[in-house]
Amino acid sequence: MTRLPAGIAEFLRAETPQTWLDEAAKRVPEMLLDHANCELKAASTALGFLYRYPDRSALAQRMSRLAREELRHFEQVRSIMADMGISFERLSASRYAGHLRDAVRPDEPYKLLDMLLIGALIEARSCERFARIAPRLPAKLAKFYNGLLASEARHFEHYIAFARSECGIAEAEVDARLEALKQLEATLIVEPDAEFRFHSGVPAR
Amino acid sequence: MTRLPAGIAEFLRAETPQTWLDEAAKRVPEMLLDHANCELKAASTALGFLYRYPDRSALAQRMSRLAREELRHFEQVRSIMADMGISFERLSASRYAGHLRDAVRPDEPYKLLDMLLIGALIEARSCERFARIAPRLPAKLAKFYNGLLASEARHFEHYIAFARSECGIAEAEVDARLEALKQLEATLIVEPDAEFRFHSGVPAR
Repeated sequence: MTRLPAGIAEFLRAETPQTWLDEAAKRVPEMLLDHANCELKAASTALGFLYRYPDRSALAQRMSRLAREELRHFEQVRSIMADMGISFERLSASRYAGHLRDAVRPDEPYKLLDMLLIGALIEARSCERFARIAPRLPAKLAKFYNGLLASEARHFEHYIAFARSECGIAEAEVDARLEALKQLEATLIVEPDAEFRFHSGVPAR
Repeated sequence: MTRLPAGIAEFLRAETPQTWLDEAAKRVPEMLLDHANCELKAASTALGFLYRYPDRSALAQRMSRLAREELRHFEQVRSIMADMGISFERLSASRYAGHLRDAVRPDEPYKLLDMLLIGALIEARSCERFARIAPRLPAKLAKFYNGLLASEARHFEHYIAFARSECGIAEAEVDARLEALKQLEATLIVEPDAEFRFHSGVPAR
């Protein structure tokens, strides 16, 4: 049975709506296609930290390992897609990712803080969606999603830890910013969304 | 003892000059710094194929695995650098990489062919340099370089195989283009180079 880690459930300010789960259960190939795209983007995002902050050794080593893990998931999702006869194509950024990215402040160290906090939020949401959708999926896919859940939960922890350790920003300020971003993320999840994606909001009619 | 695979020795049109080896043996920290940069760039280059040719499944799966392997090497080199007290910074592209990249033709399928052939050449040259410099390095570093040599040789094979299978270009045309690029690569290795890098030419005085 799929168990959502307690830390993740408490972290997010909104549960995935039932209407998204119903839609996803009917649109598994599209969900997998966007999921594969998300894994590739997650790897690129992790590498972006290496390029932007090359001298931060602990961050660089962790983000490189994280990128490797996301790439392995990308390969696994593509392999499942190939078995199901689904071809891969690149998708544009979702409303969810676009709006979160727009919230990143331009100046350091706030830029680094925001990117790390948003990384944590996306990993936490992915984890929650894997847990919630897995019981509605065929057995093989459900097993795969349950496996991913554990690793996304670890990534979430790493992003949060770096947000607190790397930016030199007082804990109260980090907490306040995190709460604001949590609210934004929850809004994107519960409001109507014209496109169906792995991180989309309530399916618009 | 370090053994250069026969396939690599026959593939390259010029051996690494003795003067580069002498320079590298004296400038190990700089060589390691550029080596770490090269591993990161190699990972990014592999990911570039995923983004540019998303529908080519065999290529995408292989390049994703290759990117993971390059990232693991990046982490290993950074870890060795950290043990030696060498800090990491990003370096601009070398003359070698810049000139090879400039040779890529803009139109498909020649662009894909050229990028794959250049990938093969860079992997082959890296392999040759690991084999040639390893006997001049401290034991721990020599052992690490001997390990990398085998994996770069595999990457070389993959790039060549894809150049022949993915582009739909006749074998004779692939061979002719490969020979032209081999000549360019050899020129960059034997001519004077103002900067010392992992893939630089003869150290300019």
